[in-house]
Amino acid sequence: MKSTEPLTDENQGVSQSNNDRLLRALLRQPVDRTPVWVMRQAGRYLPEYRATRKQAGDFLTLCKTPELACKVTLQPVERFELDAAILFSDILTIPDAMGLGLTINEGEGPRFARPVRSRRDIDALKIPDPEGELRYVMDAVRLIRAELGGRVPLIGFAGSPWTLASYMVEGQGSREFTITKTMLYNDSGTMERLLEIVTASVIDYLNAQITAGVQVVMLFDTWGGLLSTRAYDRFSLTPMRRIIDSLIRNIDDTRIPIVLFTKGGGQWLEQIADSGCDAIGLDWTVDIGAARRRVGDRVALQGNLDPAVLHASPDRIRDEVKAVLDGFGHGTGHVFNLGHGIQPSVNPEHLGALVQAVRELSVSYHE
Amino acid sequence: MKSTEPLTDENQGVSQSNNDRLLRALLRQPVDRTPVWVMRQAGRYLPEYRATRKQAGDFLTLCKTPELACKVTLQPVERFELDAAILFSDILTIPDAMGLGLTINEGEGPRFARPVRSRRDIDALKIPDPEGELRYVMDAVRLIRAELGGRVPLIGFAGSPWTLASYMVEGQGSREFTITKTMLYNDSGTMERLLEIVTASVIDYLNAQITAGVQVVMLFDTWGGLLSTRAYDRFSLTPMRRIIDSLIRNIDDTRIPIVLFTKGGGQWLEQIADSGCDAIGLDWTVDIGAARRRVGDRVALQGNLDPAVLHASPDRIRDEVKAVLDGFGHGTGHVFNLGHGIQPSVNPEHLGALVQAVRELSVSYHE
Repeated sequence: MKSTEPLTDENQGVSQSNNDRLLRALLRQPVDRTPVWVMRQAGRYLPEYRATRKQAGDFLTLCKTPELACKVTLQPVERFELDAAILFSDILTIPDAMGLGLTINEGEGPRFARPVRSRRDIDALKIPDPEGELRYVMDAVRLIRAELGGRVPLIGFAGSPWTLASYMVEGQGSREFTITKTMLYNDSGTMERLLEIVTASVIDYLNAQITAGVQVVMLFDTWGGLLSTRAYDRFSLTPMRRIIDSLIRNIDDTRIPIVLFTKGGGQWLEQIADSGCDAIGLDWTVDIGAARRRVGDRVALQGNLDPAVLHASPDRIRDEVKAVLDGFGHGTGHVFNLGHGIQPSVNPEHLGALVQAVRELSVSYHE
Repeated sequence: MKSTEPLTDENQGVSQSNNDRLLRALLRQPVDRTPVWVMRQAGRYLPEYRATRKQAGDFLTLCKTPELACKVTLQPVERFELDAAILFSDILTIPDAMGLGLTINEGEGPRFARPVRSRRDIDALKIPDPEGELRYVMDAVRLIRAELGGRVPLIGFAGSPWTLASYMVEGQGSREFTITKTMLYNDSGTMERLLEIVTASVIDYLNAQITAGVQVVMLFDTWGGLLSTRAYDRFSLTPMRRIIDSLIRNIDDTRIPIVLFTKGGGQWLEQIADSGCDAIGLDWTVDIGAARRRVGDRVALQGNLDPAVLHASPDRIRDEVKAVLDGFGHGTGHVFNLGHGIQPSVNPEHLGALVQAVRELSVSYHE
């Protein structure tokens, strides 16, 4: 891997990794080229991932076995020249630790045996202990940091309170989340009480991840984009703001950047930029150049190639990578990524073509 | 039904209906209150619709039998005091008439036996004759106009070329439309050729609807919101602009307003407003007040209550109706609607509560 120049006094405040492009770009400090990683980079499109998952037996066992979670976390970092590792885990570890009876079956998506439907259900919820029921996640973080040996930074993450609450109330994924929205519109106090408990749980969980060693934190707000603007602000962005206000922001004088990603949130970039996050994750529908003009120099941007581009030929992938780099334009503050997770049917060589294109084409935007 | 004042010379250029609120609001002419209709108002939430559909046997037969299509079109107009009827039909009538072998099964969604996957498939497509294969649609329009007897205006519609092409290539609905997007990214020339044929078909189809008697035209761009900004402009908005440029805009000196609805298009309102349409349909994620500030007085706005609100109590429905009316603010240019189709599980009395709330609360915004 081509390394960046060694850390000097000018670079103070950036976490120690041999490759610190990600951290620097998220804090809008100069870099030699645009860093790149992709959402779900440790996933089913990789044969080595499928083999390890088979070994684990099922998805949740893979998440809950630190050695195996570590192994799949490192697989894409070793196969491609990526600029970050992301903890292999699932956003539903928190409600699972609350005892809602999570199962995740291939092709069906997650399902809770005991969804949360009433004030009584909510009052019975307990905030999970990150070093108790969720210790397997922290053990995975510690192991991955040790195995990475500083090669690239490690990203930790959690689901947004709204996204977790949606799954907890609905009991499964949904196109319309009718049960959840009925609670929101009919009984907003009960919804807010649920969000409070989930928010407190996410704060504990992410602070424990930071203490265990993650160097960047990302909030995945998968379902925020299903809300009206008013409901988004109240039920999704406000709890995320509380999390950002409560996270450990520095470890040993190094900043822990926070990335906030609301899928379908392109209308709300100004509000998201004011949340206190360091960077905004953009889905592929957003024009990254327009986004940069809207948020100015308040935050960095991460994204946002259409994941479907990876089904096209390497030449076309290169053209589309160029269009995103061009869209952002010159200077730091951009982390290259897809606008959503990589699809299981993608040929891994096509991700290789993407990474190579970013590495080669992005240099000129930082000269 | 409370009628508006009789048409005078000042109202010239607005199509003749006893209730012309919809037409006036779409053209931003003064109205006594905000007109209201809802997407999929003739649908499964209505017991009388379910009875007629049962009589028809299946959904496509219902669409293809003008007497039954007329019957279900009128049902919601007669049950509620709505300000418009919308032709009961389906956006997939065009690809069905092209011979792709459409089936629509309850709960499964539409499916084509012969999807369009290659240049050869595309070159074999024929533009359907609106008074031939699609005559059943025009017959329904003529019958509905006669049965309405001018009570409220009749809205006609078509799917956007991008939406129709997505179904035609994919062969069914999809979350990611991978096959369609692979064609888009790998072979944009082939995609554009398909869009040309579909665009020409939609133009013929809508002009025939206008000639047969529809008084408003709506373009449903259900899948435009799955595109990147650049791809949306090229593959969805550009063909829609061509349609708008080619439609009959006046019949007997009365204007035929065009409404363009891109689900998930909240980021692109300025571009949509410049398309030549008279009004923009807004999904429920958009803040209608912000939308009005963005588009100014170029177009009217239609929408945009979250359809999930109809699962809440009548009191809460009234609050949320008020919030949308407040959001748009004072003056004409607003057609009240949901931000997406009414859901089958809604209690019809709740739609009654919505309509009543709009009728009562909206008057003060037009004084």
